[in-house]
Amino acid sequence: MVVGKRINRVDAVTKVKGTAKYTEDLLDDKTLVAKVLHSTIANGRVISFDLEEAKAVDGVVKIITSFDVPDIQYPTAGHPWSTEKSHQDVCDRKLLNTRVRFYGDEIACVIADNEIAAGQAVAKIKVEYEEYPAIFDMEEAANNPGEIPIHEERPNNVIVKSSYDVGDYDEAIKEKGLIKVEGVYETQKVQQCHIENATSFAYEEAGKVVVVSSTQIPHIVRRVCSQALGIDMGLVRIIKPYIGGGFGNKQDALTEPLNAFLTMQVGGRPVKLLYTREETFFGTRSRHAMKFYITSYVRPNGTFAARKIVGFSDNGAYGSHAHALVANAVNAFRMMYPVGAIRGVASTIYTNNPTAGAMRAYGIPQIGFALEAHVEDIVAKLPNIDSIKFRLINMMQLGYVDPGTSITCHSTGLEECIARGRKSIGWDEKIEKYKNQTGDIRHGVGMGIFCYKTGVYPIALETSAARMILNQDGSIQLQVGATEIGQGADTVFTQMAADTLGFTFDKVHIISNQDTDVTPYDTGAYASRQTYVTGMAVKKTAESLKSKICAYAGWMLNKDSSDLDIIDNNIVRVGTEDVLLTMNEVGMESCYSRQNSNHLAAEETHHCTDNTYSFGVCFMDIEVDIPLSNIKINRVLNVHDSGTIINPQTAEGQVHGGMSMGLGYGLFEQMLFDPKTGRMLNDNLLDYKLMTALDTPDLEVDFVEPVDPSGPYGNKSLGEPPVIPMAPALRNAVLNATGVAVNSIPLNPDKLFHEFSAAGLIK
Amino acid sequence: MVVGKRINRVDAVTKVKGTAKYTEDLLDDKTLVAKVLHSTIANGRVISFDLEEAKAVDGVVKIITSFDVPDIQYPTAGHPWSTEKSHQDVCDRKLLNTRVRFYGDEIACVIADNEIAAGQAVAKIKVEYEEYPAIFDMEEAANNPGEIPIHEERPNNVIVKSSYDVGDYDEAIKEKGLIKVEGVYETQKVQQCHIENATSFAYEEAGKVVVVSSTQIPHIVRRVCSQALGIDMGLVRIIKPYIGGGFGNKQDALTEPLNAFLTMQVGGRPVKLLYTREETFFGTRSRHAMKFYITSYVRPNGTFAARKIVGFSDNGAYGSHAHALVANAVNAFRMMYPVGAIRGVASTIYTNNPTAGAMRAYGIPQIGFALEAHVEDIVAKLPNIDSIKFRLINMMQLGYVDPGTSITCHSTGLEECIARGRKSIGWDEKIEKYKNQTGDIRHGVGMGIFCYKTGVYPIALETSAARMILNQDGSIQLQVGATEIGQGADTVFTQMAADTLGFTFDKVHIISNQDTDVTPYDTGAYASRQTYVTGMAVKKTAESLKSKICAYAGWMLNKDSSDLDIIDNNIVRVGTEDVLLTMNEVGMESCYSRQNSNHLAAEETHHCTDNTYSFGVCFMDIEVDIPLSNIKINRVLNVHDSGTIINPQTAEGQVHGGMSMGLGYGLFEQMLFDPKTGRMLNDNLLDYKLMTALDTPDLEVDFVEPVDPSGPYGNKSLGEPPVIPMAPALRNAVLNATGVAVNSIPLNPDKLFHEFSAAGLIK
Repeated sequence: MVVGKRINRVDAVTKVKGTAKYTEDLLDDKTLVAKVLHSTIANGRVISFDLEEAKAVDGVVKIITSFDVPDIQYPTAGHPWSTEKSHQDVCDRKLLNTRVRFYGDEIACVIADNEIAAGQAVAKIKVEYEEYPAIFDMEEAANNPGEIPIHEERPNNVIVKSSYDVGDYDEAIKEKGLIKVEGVYETQKVQQCHIENATSFAYEEAGKVVVVSSTQIPHIVRRVCSQALGIDMGLVRIIKPYIGGGFGNKQDALTEPLNAFLTMQVGGRPVKLLYTREETFFGTRSRHAMKFYITSYVRPNGTFAARKIVGFSDNGAYGSHAHALVANAVNAFRMMYPVGAIRGVASTIYTNNPTAGAMRAYGIPQIGFALEAHVEDIVAKLPNIDSIKFRLINMMQLGYVDPGTSITCHSTGLEECIARGRKSIGWDEKIEKYKNQTGDIRHGVGMGIFCYKTGVYPIALETSAARMILNQDGSIQLQVGATEIGQGADTVFTQMAADTLGFTFDKVHIISNQDTDVTPYDTGAYASRQTYVTGMAVKKTAESLKSKICAYAGWMLNKDSSDLDIIDNNIVRVGTEDVLLTMNEVGMESCYSRQNSNHLAAEETHHCTDNTYSFGVCFMDIEVDIPLSNIKINRVLNVHDSGTIINPQTAEGQVHGGMSMGLGYGLFEQMLFDPKTGRMLNDNLLDYKLMTALDTPDLEVDFVEPVDPSGPYGNKSLGEPPVIPMAPALRNAVLNATGVAVNSIPLNPDKLFHEFSAAGLIK
Repeated sequence: MVVGKRINRVDAVTKVKGTAKYTEDLLDDKTLVAKVLHSTIANGRVISFDLEEAKAVDGVVKIITSFDVPDIQYPTAGHPWSTEKSHQDVCDRKLLNTRVRFYGDEIACVIADNEIAAGQAVAKIKVEYEEYPAIFDMEEAANNPGEIPIHEERPNNVIVKSSYDVGDYDEAIKEKGLIKVEGVYETQKVQQCHIENATSFAYEEAGKVVVVSSTQIPHIVRRVCSQALGIDMGLVRIIKPYIGGGFGNKQDALTEPLNAFLTMQVGGRPVKLLYTREETFFGTRSRHAMKFYITSYVRPNGTFAARKIVGFSDNGAYGSHAHALVANAVNAFRMMYPVGAIRGVASTIYTNNPTAGAMRAYGIPQIGFALEAHVEDIVAKLPNIDSIKFRLINMMQLGYVDPGTSITCHSTGLEECIARGRKSIGWDEKIEKYKNQTGDIRHGVGMGIFCYKTGVYPIALETSAARMILNQDGSIQLQVGATEIGQGADTVFTQMAADTLGFTFDKVHIISNQDTDVTPYDTGAYASRQTYVTGMAVKKTAESLKSKICAYAGWMLNKDSSDLDIIDNNIVRVGTEDVLLTMNEVGMESCYSRQNSNHLAAEETHHCTDNTYSFGVCFMDIEVDIPLSNIKINRVLNVHDSGTIINPQTAEGQVHGGMSMGLGYGLFEQMLFDPKTGRMLNDNLLDYKLMTALDTPDLEVDFVEPVDPSGPYGNKSLGEPPVIPMAPALRNAVLNATGVAVNSIPLNPDKLFHEFSAAGLIK
């Protein structure tokens, strides 16, 4: 059995050797080059284009402007489509936009024989704009939308405003003796920074438009391309090769719909549309900047009586995933501490910033920072309740059923996670030790907890299908619609299939790439859904194939198939290890039998109607250099409850990556814009400070493994969660070290200098 | 309903526009180039290679010689593998051969960065040989094998000798009053001359060796590569893109096993092995030259009392398909005229000629020439029986069960085919008119009939699988393991699927390319098996998918699925045309249902245990210029019984192609060799005379369509048969015109000059 074992990634060798083919590796030199012309105003509309000089550039094949594209507004979000109109994604952009809504909007496109011609022609297109005042602040956009809204369908610039109440907040706050704590918490706009930029190419073949793309969601991109172009879904084919990261940015249709349209404008000739790093920064998606106003009423015994959150999310210029993220955040505000009356209000707002979309943990790093900072602010006002005790008193317990979603806590190891982290980091000793510090260098410990759902049920559809084929040598091919995007999904699916079939790991060959023509249907890689939802599809398919194999072996042996089992690639009698047939014998006979050949294959769908919570905690021990306003992390430890860990080795890798990304979020990362024009200032990896190996402390990981009864192998979400608790633990450690509560991230030296100065620590 | 309709090919547009990607179109410029060194002796062995100068060529990456390859003898034939040792294909060659058996044998290979370096290095390899006397004549090879046999496993150079008896031949010939007719008939070695040469490239990815190849038989090539390299079958992946013809030559593993080995020698880097036209001529396969000794005993009433055939087949240097072809020929000798006692003897012989293999109609054009020429020779000796009457008396009738194979004549329209052809060509009038001609220009009519099996059952396994997936828009993808090789298979499968599902033709999207990782198992394109065997798999899969669709629609409608049917892409109540749901509604709900999403797909195997005969006749009206020894075809008409014609338009195309190929066989084509060295003399399309548009007369086609009860849609074999009757009809027309019976082909001016001279027509 290999589930639970430290198994090397199935794609390790092919990636290390460089034989794995990414989208660009599949291009040939005859492919035409497309380059997009991006708007140089943040709000307004194009009056006209002058293409004369651009067309004269040698090598230009065709120029398409926003006046040439279909008059179809389409959605880009990588959500499962809803057949109910009211739940459908916002359709608010065209392939190219005459109505410009951010600095960098896509307004025209040159197709040329080569990069240079394409670039020169783009530079020679002259544009006449009518410019409107731009609004970059989300609250201002909602409060003072102006005469010309960003989208005419939303006159007040609010995409969605939603609210909920658990209990009676207004009554609850009347209780005597409550301590009121208020805070405003802000998170910045950051980007996913996958190493492979937004990359696609497209061509026509066999009557279909084919788009090869670095995407997390091939089946969804197929649907979006069909909608954007107004053609049948069966006439669109998406191929997803190996992919150099996505982190949610590629859970959106990015370059694909336009790319599909472009090839159709040149008779189906191959056209590539490779966004540069700069274009990927401003022209794709990012994490939403959010702002939360939180008011809590707490009893002196440390229980919540009532609390309220009013959240705002800066969605930027176009809908993309829109309200789903801040709604998710404000829901998690309720779930994490389901105690007392709770009121949640959330608004998603159009601004003239670049569009925000999905990014690892989907709104929860934002609320995680706000909520865990706020909890620490509460603890500071409760003399006899410490950080850990407060959380233990109020946090979600086993059996919790969320009133908004009915998502049930089927398992929780959070208390054990906290206990282990507390002990490992030496929490109690250090809290004592770090009291009453003075001087320039001060030490602090901080922590943050989180809960995280597994997949998107019941907010949206959860469905997944898999297929398996028995080969002559007794190995199988495993095909899933869910995508390997670097997170290691293929490896855990291989483990799951092997165990369920009774095969050894080496006998399962997973197909890493998706092709919507032949790949079973699945919505893709997001929401930490794959081991849970697709894992169940893999399990069902393996069970189905196993039963077909046993039936066939039963025919070969003239035995009842219910008496047969598979262990270590052999057909055995149930309950014994006596080898009756090898799988190679079964495979050969099934393909070559003169009496009863049978291509043994299985294909099953898992329609998922459950969900469960993962949990975890980050503990951090830091030192703060107050004059330099610099943070040094001495220890950082995440303890996760993701149920059964399918592969501890790759799980640790996931946690390492998430911790690093969360630290970057807390410490450095921020997309910066010219406040006048809205132009991005640091749209490159030199000026945008991403965590590097040198910036990264030793990352410690531990797992608590309650078996979740709803997971296919006792497992729950893991891919996204590690990013969540880093920023609040960091912020709380700074508070512990310095007494300064910083309510926004990143905690870069610039910000800390101003905060420490304001607090009188720097004079 | 579209079965039986004139439908344009599904690949017409993509091929005409040039967007269809063939193997070479998928190459990139970083691919390494492999070039083979071919032996310059016809028989012997390599003593040593001197690689020094070759290795010094700039750009050479690696040189592999016959001393470096695995010590594994493997089979190349594109047959379904037999798990019974005695039925397995001959394993008599290695990836590169030290023991050289024909001029052109593969003895070493250079891998280089570019074509020029590879070519230069190949030219600089020095080889020391030990040379043995070469034997190019098959009868001599068998009669005087010499001390060193071509393969040590076959000391007498006979690969297989087989025989059968129907009735008691020795007794039967004792009947009084029989007329004895003897003849010796010979056919030449020709090549398939597909426009796309033998072409492949290979690389390693995801732990597998991947070979992209222009092959008719991807699943079989996968097995052969695994055997040749000694690696598990699950670690080999074959991809078959669009293909520029095969005609049986690509029903063999050609460059693929060596190519797979080569990439493994350079760490999995992509390596291409593109045979030139010259290499394709001598280094791949060809049609077997055969020689038949036939003796018949006929009663004056025109019935066969007894007849005997002794056939020889020149297999050349290596086994390939070996004895299967002459055995097929000698069996057809029995089947066509199953009257009287029959004795058949067949031998397949190794010579030092290039290897023969499969070619369209697989031994039957050879026997077709011999038998139909022989029948005409018999008729010439029967005063009151004409060509047509003799055939009608003796030919296979409905219900015939072959004593050797049990293949049953489930349907026959042959009598009607003959009647229609006879009338159309004006046979009776012309027979009268062309009597007693004199002068240089003489006219003649000739005919030939044939019968042809459908697939390879029960000689070998017949199995086929298909898969279908319902798309959101209510269209489907259809995936088959059987290959489109230009013959139009994809179009007829699309028609079959549409009709069986109740869909319109445009809603079925067939996947034209095969990839053994994901494509259902099927043995490939050969033996005119696809509409019959794979057609049944398509039918079964469509029935299975239709039943799943109706079940799902039943759930949507809360109705019993047995009350539902599909007509024109709509769910209707059985027996009505009232639309209850569109297929688009079903497709959308199946993918996006929040209650019951279900990836609707079906995958079924057809294990075929039947066979049936197709029939046909060619009638020809020619004029012969005796002094120029030249034939002009004034009219040529084929009338075929292939059961129900699925697509008359593409069927006519098939017949046109086959007629042209058969005329080339009868008129011009012949591979010529230096009698001393065995080197091919005309290994290019200038010196090898292929039929061109200018050489081709108007080709007339008619079909008689009895519904065959064993065919999935009443259909029987069609792809290969049209080539069969051309050469004998031509030869018999020359006989009718001139009185000269020429017993070998091609009937080129050189041969006719000698024959006419010998007959005294040219003095």
